[in-house]
Amino acid sequence: MAQIRHALNVKRADDFAAWYQEVISAAEMAEESGVRGCMVIRPWGFGIWERMQRLLDDRIKATGHENAYFPIFIPLSNFAREAEHVEGFAKEMAVVTHHRLIAGKDGGLMPDPEAKLEEPLVVRPTSETIIGDAMARWVQSWRDLPLKLNQWANVVRWEMRTRMFLRTSEFLWQEGHTAHADAEEAKAHTLTMLEVYRAFADEDLSLAVIAGEKPENERFPGAVETWSIEAMMQDGKALQAGTSHYLGTNFSKASGIKYQDREGGETLAHTTSWGVSTRMVGGVIMTHGDDDGLRLPPRIAPQQVVILPMLRDGPEDAPLLAYCEELRAALAAQAALGEKVRVLLDSRPGKAAAKRWDWVRKGAPAIVEVGGRDMDNGVVSLLRRDRLWDEASGKPAFQTPSRDEATAAIPGILEDMQAVLLDEARARRDANITREVADFAEVERHFTASRYPGWLEVQWSRPTGAALDQVVERLKAHKLTIRNVPQDASPADGACLFTGEPAVERILLAKAY
Amino acid sequence: MAQIRHALNVKRADDFAAWYQEVISAAEMAEESGVRGCMVIRPWGFGIWERMQRLLDDRIKATGHENAYFPIFIPLSNFAREAEHVEGFAKEMAVVTHHRLIAGKDGGLMPDPEAKLEEPLVVRPTSETIIGDAMARWVQSWRDLPLKLNQWANVVRWEMRTRMFLRTSEFLWQEGHTAHADAEEAKAHTLTMLEVYRAFADEDLSLAVIAGEKPENERFPGAVETWSIEAMMQDGKALQAGTSHYLGTNFSKASGIKYQDREGGETLAHTTSWGVSTRMVGGVIMTHGDDDGLRLPPRIAPQQVVILPMLRDGPEDAPLLAYCEELRAALAAQAALGEKVRVLLDSRPGKAAAKRWDWVRKGAPAIVEVGGRDMDNGVVSLLRRDRLWDEASGKPAFQTPSRDEATAAIPGILEDMQAVLLDEARARRDANITREVADFAEVERHFTASRYPGWLEVQWSRPTGAALDQVVERLKAHKLTIRNVPQDASPADGACLFTGEPAVERILLAKAY
Repeated sequence: MAQIRHALNVKRADDFAAWYQEVISAAEMAEESGVRGCMVIRPWGFGIWERMQRLLDDRIKATGHENAYFPIFIPLSNFAREAEHVEGFAKEMAVVTHHRLIAGKDGGLMPDPEAKLEEPLVVRPTSETIIGDAMARWVQSWRDLPLKLNQWANVVRWEMRTRMFLRTSEFLWQEGHTAHADAEEAKAHTLTMLEVYRAFADEDLSLAVIAGEKPENERFPGAVETWSIEAMMQDGKALQAGTSHYLGTNFSKASGIKYQDREGGETLAHTTSWGVSTRMVGGVIMTHGDDDGLRLPPRIAPQQVVILPMLRDGPEDAPLLAYCEELRAALAAQAALGEKVRVLLDSRPGKAAAKRWDWVRKGAPAIVEVGGRDMDNGVVSLLRRDRLWDEASGKPAFQTPSRDEATAAIPGILEDMQAVLLDEARARRDANITREVADFAEVERHFTASRYPGWLEVQWSRPTGAALDQVVERLKAHKLTIRNVPQDASPADGACLFTGEPAVERILLAKAY
Repeated sequence: MAQIRHALNVKRADDFAAWYQEVISAAEMAEESGVRGCMVIRPWGFGIWERMQRLLDDRIKATGHENAYFPIFIPLSNFAREAEHVEGFAKEMAVVTHHRLIAGKDGGLMPDPEAKLEEPLVVRPTSETIIGDAMARWVQSWRDLPLKLNQWANVVRWEMRTRMFLRTSEFLWQEGHTAHADAEEAKAHTLTMLEVYRAFADEDLSLAVIAGEKPENERFPGAVETWSIEAMMQDGKALQAGTSHYLGTNFSKASGIKYQDREGGETLAHTTSWGVSTRMVGGVIMTHGDDDGLRLPPRIAPQQVVILPMLRDGPEDAPLLAYCEELRAALAAQAALGEKVRVLLDSRPGKAAAKRWDWVRKGAPAIVEVGGRDMDNGVVSLLRRDRLWDEASGKPAFQTPSRDEATAAIPGILEDMQAVLLDEARARRDANITREVADFAEVERHFTASRYPGWLEVQWSRPTGAALDQVVERLKAHKLTIRNVPQDASPADGACLFTGEPAVERILLAKAY
């Protein structure tokens, strides 16, 4: 086997964190903005987020939700209403205290002391309390329920340590908020949205997530139940990729979301909330990226096929461009994965080989190069991003179908690649979950034995209160957390790893982002 | 002619401002949030904005722009860079000064004095300076130009007097930002985007706008040229519905957007910016609304057809719902205006007549009622929102086509309505622009003679500096402003209304929102 010269400088196996940063930079997805904790999402990164938005928005609407928009500013007093919520959120937030600037002494600008707000405003870290206010106005009778809302918005949580996409002070997300007549319906809806997230993550993003309930200590501040989808990154860490909360009547009490029931009595509504954010983009990078850059599941690729004519800045370029344009039009008229194929003819200045590697690093699923000789022979040079290298020669694994064959084959290639990436992610995940752990010493050994140790599935007795705190502390000493109780795990049949008592369920232990 | 009982309490002719508020409330488009100057955009209002976004986004992408996302927070020092920009914007803005809350003495929360930011952050009122920073990093060579970006975002300008959609402290918009190699290309692009806005306003929103250049005194802070589209509201006032700015090298100087040209020299880029916001929704209301509520151009209606079965809460409901569902499916399979027909079967509890008037107030283009007798006769009762009343009887002008006839006719009806609303808006606008004004006294008379006086088109000599200030002051005394110099106005052929000198062009005078 020949030596392969990969397109990135850092390999996953050598330094996963540095590799992650290099993918983001080499694929021109995002960069530091110079504003503390905030990133700039560049067109390629934002195009991926737009695709995610479109696909998830369709799923959210298909389950009966409507989009709306609520203020970015939340009065300070709103946060004080729900005790646990304030405890969990009211710490690191951006606080607006003034509404005017004036010239300062040094020729610069400063907040005008005359324009101090009577009540400071918080830039929303999440919108339960402000949407709760609206729900209290809109919900009057049982006929108004269920009320199913969603919002696409930016939110701010002042983070001390930030990492692009995974943890930034400002991020983009959707937050769903619903009100229901009773606990049963609200709990069922919490699980409906968890399933929407699971299907979105697996089918659209090829992530192979595990859905399950979070333990008590990991609940959203103010929630009665928190459910999550967890994805395994290639370094074996877990990424919480989406959460769905059953909030009971905690927020409806705080905001006064009451309705007249069919019997004429006044009843508190039960609410849910659920969100997915731009951190999902980070999850896609760390699940599918390789030592040549990003690999994108075709459903979320802003461009699925990139055509690169080998231009020579001469008169021979015109027929070559025409040949490529015919290919572009023929591909764009086809459908793959239920949508029109997204195809770009990249005729910008620059050498075709350099542009090829740019598109490899960006993760375009299919790259089609066309030179003058290809045109003369009626063929194209086709490269699949998921089968980039010919191992024997150490060179890119180009195929050379005829132009018509390529046109006919590409939709199927995109559909195959979508499935291949999910299969790979699922196989890697399953190979890296270790079960049958005898005692805590083995947990310690497992997480120190290798660099990227994956997850453990263990049995426990679901301790609460102080007993749970003890478990959490023991895990914390090894930088471990309980990810969730997988919905489809086997029933418990042994002893609790922590207490020795009979186990009641299985949980996942992992290091996490 | 019989008396018509309209669906709203306030008529446009009686109190236009109160009518506007009633439409917004009766159509459930938006409401006050309780947070100063910020509104809640309810699902129907947000659905209209989503339709606008989709249509405008397609047009922006078709002209070669890519979407990206930049931080909501802008360091104070950024504003000080461009002198005119700071003068125009650095006044009423939301200023973030702290990043943490702590418990206050009264049990409430307060900004933590320990967590005061070294440099306050401003919530973006517009993003020229922060996007300029990124452009300076991305533009290195002539090969990087033109750079064509767009952002969909929320922005905040602290407004003292707010009115829903028209002027709110937080609003939603898109802001396009481009960099070009020279003035000629940048100026041409400014006009390309003006034309995108004009086409969007006319073809998608049926607004019949007038595109033209703003006078010097109405330029965006820091711009060399500002162009606008102006729409006439039914009270004769103007609404600036979109602006496109040629910024020269003012912002590229401030941010350092320089490139190496083909000859190897270092050159400043020329930039443009352009934006359209949620105020467009207010423009649609005040252009198309009538005394029964909103009327929506079908292209931007979240639902174009609403089917209302006359349910009786009995066993006869099942076949009726099945009959309506067949109609819904048949309509949804058809296309109108280049997209699938958006049709809603509204089977929520409630009387059909009450629901009909709700949908009339919301401006759904076509309403189809189906009762048991209609079903037995194979017909439906069809109401066009733009031909609501039978003047003779004073009753709703229902047609009763067969179900198949209705299915076949509705796409054509939607296309017709889109054109009818534009024709109406254009005819009203043209009928309310008065030309041939002899002197300023006539201007005064015109704007005091009637309640909704429309616009004047007058000739002027394009004074600048102090002479222009004088004109602006004279107009201001009558609450008038110069809207723009229409692109397609006739050439000047007379004397300046203000100076008596030979006129050089024609301008529009109006009261404005």
